[in-house]
Amino acid sequence: MLNFESDYTTGCHPRILQRLAETNLVSQTGYGFDEYCLSAAEKIKKECNCPDAEVEFLTGGTQTNQVVIASMTIDGDGIIAADTGHINGHEAGAIEVSGHKVFGLKHTNGKISASQVSAFVDNYYADANHEHMVRPAMVYISHPSEYGTLYSKKELTDLSNVCKEKGLTLFLDGARLGYGLMSYQTDVTIADIAALTDVFYIGGTKVGALCGEAVVFTHANKPERFLARKKQRGALLAKGRLLGVQFDTLFTDGLYYEISRNAIDRAEELKALLVRKGYKIFMESPTNQQFVVVDNKKYEDLKKVVRAGFWETVDENHTAIRFATSWCTTKEDIAALEEVL
Amino acid sequence: MLNFESDYTTGCHPRILQRLAETNLVSQTGYGFDEYCLSAAEKIKKECNCPDAEVEFLTGGTQTNQVVIASMTIDGDGIIAADTGHINGHEAGAIEVSGHKVFGLKHTNGKISASQVSAFVDNYYADANHEHMVRPAMVYISHPSEYGTLYSKKELTDLSNVCKEKGLTLFLDGARLGYGLMSYQTDVTIADIAALTDVFYIGGTKVGALCGEAVVFTHANKPERFLARKKQRGALLAKGRLLGVQFDTLFTDGLYYEISRNAIDRAEELKALLVRKGYKIFMESPTNQQFVVVDNKKYEDLKKVVRAGFWETVDENHTAIRFATSWCTTKEDIAALEEVL
Amino acid sequence: MLNFESDYTTGCHPRILQRLAETNLVSQTGYGFDEYCLSAAEKIKKECNCPDAEVEFLTGGTQTNQVVIASMTIDGDGIIAADTGHINGHEAGAIEVSGHKVFGLKHTNGKISASQVSAFVDNYYADANHEHMVRPAMVYISHPSEYGTLYSKKELTDLSNVCKEKGLTLFLDGARLGYGLMSYQTDVTIADIAALTDVFYIGGTKVGALCGEAVVFTHANKPERFLARKKQRGALLAKGRLLGVQFDTLFTDGLYYEISRNAIDRAEELKALLVRKGYKIFMESPTNQQFVVVDNKKYEDLKKVVRAGFWETVDENHTAIRFATSWCTTKEDIAALEEVL
Amino acid sequence: MLNFESDYTTGCHPRILQRLAETNLVSQTGYGFDEYCLSAAEKIKKECNCPDAEVEFLTGGTQTNQVVIASMTIDGDGIIAADTGHINGHEAGAIEVSGHKVFGLKHTNGKISASQVSAFVDNYYADANHEHMVRPAMVYISHPSEYGTLYSKKELTDLSNVCKEKGLTLFLDGARLGYGLMSYQTDVTIADIAALTDVFYIGGTKVGALCGEAVVFTHANKPERFLARKKQRGALLAKGRLLGVQFDTLFTDGLYYEISRNAIDRAEELKALLVRKGYKIFMESPTNQQFVVVDNKKYEDLKKVVRAGFWETVDENHTAIRFATSWCTTKEDIAALEEVL
Repeated sequence: MLNFESDYTTGCHPRILQRLAETNLVSQTGYGFDEYCLSAAEKIKKECNCPDAEVEFLTGGTQTNQVVIASMTIDGDGIIAADTGHINGHEAGAIEVSGHKVFGLKHTNGKISASQVSAFVDNYYADANHEHMVRPAMVYISHPSEYGTLYSKKELTDLSNVCKEKGLTLFLDGARLGYGLMSYQTDVTIADIAALTDVFYIGGTKVGALCGEAVVFTHANKPERFLARKKQRGALLAKGRLLGVQFDTLFTDGLYYEISRNAIDRAEELKALLVRKGYKIFMESPTNQQFVVVDNKKYEDLKKVVRAGFWETVDENHTAIRFATSWCTTKEDIAALEEVL
Repeated sequence: MLNFESDYTTGCHPRILQRLAETNLVSQTGYGFDEYCLSAAEKIKKECNCPDAEVEFLTGGTQTNQVVIASMTIDGDGIIAADTGHINGHEAGAIEVSGHKVFGLKHTNGKISASQVSAFVDNYYADANHEHMVRPAMVYISHPSEYGTLYSKKELTDLSNVCKEKGLTLFLDGARLGYGLMSYQTDVTIADIAALTDVFYIGGTKVGALCGEAVVFTHANKPERFLARKKQRGALLAKGRLLGVQFDTLFTDGLYYEISRNAIDRAEELKALLVRKGYKIFMESPTNQQFVVVDNKKYEDLKKVVRAGFWETVDENHTAIRFATSWCTTKEDIAALEEVL
Repeated sequence: MLNFESDYTTGCHPRILQRLAETNLVSQTGYGFDEYCLSAAEKIKKECNCPDAEVEFLTGGTQTNQVVIASMTIDGDGIIAADTGHINGHEAGAIEVSGHKVFGLKHTNGKISASQVSAFVDNYYADANHEHMVRPAMVYISHPSEYGTLYSKKELTDLSNVCKEKGLTLFLDGARLGYGLMSYQTDVTIADIAALTDVFYIGGTKVGALCGEAVVFTHANKPERFLARKKQRGALLAKGRLLGVQFDTLFTDGLYYEISRNAIDRAEELKALLVRKGYKIFMESPTNQQFVVVDNKKYEDLKKVVRAGFWETVDENHTAIRFATSWCTTKEDIAALEEVL
Repeated sequence: MLNFESDYTTGCHPRILQRLAETNLVSQTGYGFDEYCLSAAEKIKKECNCPDAEVEFLTGGTQTNQVVIASMTIDGDGIIAADTGHINGHEAGAIEVSGHKVFGLKHTNGKISASQVSAFVDNYYADANHEHMVRPAMVYISHPSEYGTLYSKKELTDLSNVCKEKGLTLFLDGARLGYGLMSYQTDVTIADIAALTDVFYIGGTKVGALCGEAVVFTHANKPERFLARKKQRGALLAKGRLLGVQFDTLFTDGLYYEISRNAIDRAEELKALLVRKGYKIFMESPTNQQFVVVDNKKYEDLKKVVRAGFWETVDENHTAIRFATSWCTTKEDIAALEEVL
């Protein structure tokens, strides 16, 4: 059975395993004060061209979203996101459980725009009763978005400006950031993201690590008592080295970029193949997730030979499905897929 | 200055003040175990034709929504409401602060339908990833709605059925319930509401009391440790008698209905007057809130002589405003308004 | 049946009822922006000799404790209190439900000392692992304490200094403040309290009001978005006037002090009576609560003629009980008690 | 520098790394539905002799405590623990942030007794005002305790009985369970624990894994919607296999017991060595943590050659320190320590 279901169905890049083995018996301080975390943080700051940045490692995406949002806002503050944003629909209430409302703005290809944010905030303050309402305090965007799409540098800059103007924190969820950075259709670098957001994270779990997200507070704005804030949310690993070793490896010799690029190259081949085979593209994506519409009979046949992700019901007879490539998808996998499509 | 701004700009019905004075020095147990609370609860159960009901008194609407929702669901559960529902927009995050998501379905005249609820819940369970999503656990409706509109008995019955079928709790916010019950355009009685919902409340604050909402758990389904749940949310009054005396008075000799009817009668006169004066009705309402569209220049003039509530911006040149009558609006008030319109 | 059970078994001072009646039909803005709230706030600031103070009205003690603590600390912060403090034992978890730990220090007659606080905080920071522990961020004291005792000006000053030195907020729960201020054994004025604490409240519920507590942020330190913070916790009354009228009346012509003094005078008579009758004082109290130890047989007899509060089991054969006087206890009540003791 | 600071300063047992490598490219479903999790769960159920058990994997101890407590109690419930319990002092408020109070009972060698629990609960229900207080709903014990001590089978049985009698959930924190099971001074087996508790966990992080705790709900009592409850608290790993592989390896061929026994054997040698060298035992421990009292001058000298954990200040001149052995402590490490002590 071929597997294009998601980018987290296998383990991690072998170099990470190797480095875990090499460092395994080296004694280290716990809770993220080990030398690997320190080294990884330095490398990330350098990549970001951002000496004032503060880097913290957490375990997974939902956890990171919860801890960042809870520690950078006050009780009851609201978070503006695309209605398709991960925090709005797929975190089982993690944001609400920590006391915050998500405002789901209508997405366009998984994205929201500066003008939408601006209008929403203006509308809020224009309401005579706004003190009785949830205050929009933060903007959350995913890059790549949940549909695999990307913000352009212009779009990000506009969002950044509107956030500064309106007093909002700009938070970028980079659970799949590598695939965004290595897309052939982006003009956004990691340094741009560091310059334009208040906080973002570099996804490990979906980009070749066993687990782990590296949060970058871009301008010495790490919340007070962040270690305790992590611990309060169950997000502090005793063996923080597990995260440190992984990110240190990913940011050595450009491994993070290299494996992200592999996923992109395979995705481009995959997209070409799908088009060639007559599949209808559901949403144009420049990253590692490719969405097509299939009729339901075809979908039943496909299920027998390849695992792809259910995305959404399009109509009574059609379903949108997702093919995802990853750091370990090979040319052979694509060739094998060609056989069965 | 005439005042039609809202139904909570004055104090309370004089009979309540009188009864507070009469009982003032009678010594009573605290925390809602006084004889007035007990008597009021009995009267309300009788009105509801619902001997199994359990009645609790709280202080205000947002507090009641928070306590009822928090005590009848589990952490992270979601509440289906109209996007215009009070809990969705006007409670400063009270529901989220207690750990719950509000799903705002598109309203029709302030209401949602059984079929919308049904489709939403089916969609949730149809999603292969629904365990990663917020579970819809409760339906919240306002009757009258935030637009003054009312559910018909058929609509309520359908909602009740869909909730039973889908395993949802049906919660009716009756902050203005009296005005709904005494409308000339309703076929819904308080006994119907008790029969069709799991929990609802009878608003006092906006219907002639100084404060207070009477929550009715309709079928012996008061949550475990409800007194503690109230106290945890700061909702337990030491002098619970303040609520007991008020509701006991409101439910003696039909006072609650009588003063609600007064508001309805004045609202009907008001509506006729507005139409006669050429105002455009913004949304047809059968209760004590009447909404009209005025051009902004006219609005500025009106502000000099009458206080009405800003409702929403209709377009660049027009604003929707709300006129509210109440238990104490008089025919003289309407006549005076006629002079200045 | 005589009633000395607590200070909240009757209604309110008649002058409050009278003032509620007089203002009943005056139209006012809601949510605490009415003229009575504004007037009451001004009077209180003047009493406190504290022009920078900001005054807010809430409904009850537990609610006030929750809202003040939640809005003046960050998630997971800890509150230092006496182990007998109301927030530690008698609020059904209101502080924990809003995300905070109460550190219960061993009380001495219901009080804690500056040196206890200092040692506790030093100990915390001395611990190499303190970042993994709950940070002490606030000191909560009750004045009078839950045992009716009072802090001296020296004790308060020391607490104030230690809080400043250690970076803690000092919060004084004055649910029974009037009885503390009018005790014959105090050297503390309301202006002293305003000068020495960061925030405190003036209890209404237990001092002659139907409900209500007036919170004083003593140095322009009201938390950001406090109206929303109140609303989020269900603590914002639509008819805020109910609180405004009450406090405006209590702070007109010294009524608050006058009725507090009545309770103190009756308590002194009560204490003399109890001693005269051979009762053993459980804890010496200079305020309106008097605690005696009775043997259980006697307690059974007493229950037939007078209601007093159970306080705690002293030993197998003895119980501590509480007699409370209030604004409305009369000399006749004391005389009647003398008959039955 | 020798390192006896804690049992989480190195990586994991090499067999885990090997197994991670072997399974690395095998495609698996995410979120804990992989075959390794399923296999590990079966093995654990078998070890527990408990076919009705339900096993879930989480990442760390504090996270597990938070998720288990939040999902098995209602808002505001209280947890009885030793005052030295991890949840009471060293989780930065994780339990309070999720809305619960910890009742810290005075410990005896890190433990609490059935009679303490019984008295506490009786006292609670005997209080006339207990509905205004936090309800004790769960008992939390650590085995080994934070002082390395162990409950006897008799003590556990008594706690189990008192919990059943009083309607409390019994939760055992087994962050270091292996060291407890393999102590030479225990009569408690893992099957005993499964039989006597409602829920417990088998620590991985401190017993040879990179991370991970296996929670056992002992009698088909896993809380409703547990996957969502995990996700809400940021505790659900996309690559759940990371936990599955580790526990599957630890419970293959008795590896968990074997490496725990190694730590115990080294600890016994360490204790003998310390006594031989004239160190004063601070608290007698039958597990992998050994506590001694040193004078502060000696402590300064020691710090130059060996890392041990600061435990607590004993008096002005003495400090209690902790030596911990682990799965990877060797006889050579003990010999090397002998050289420098």
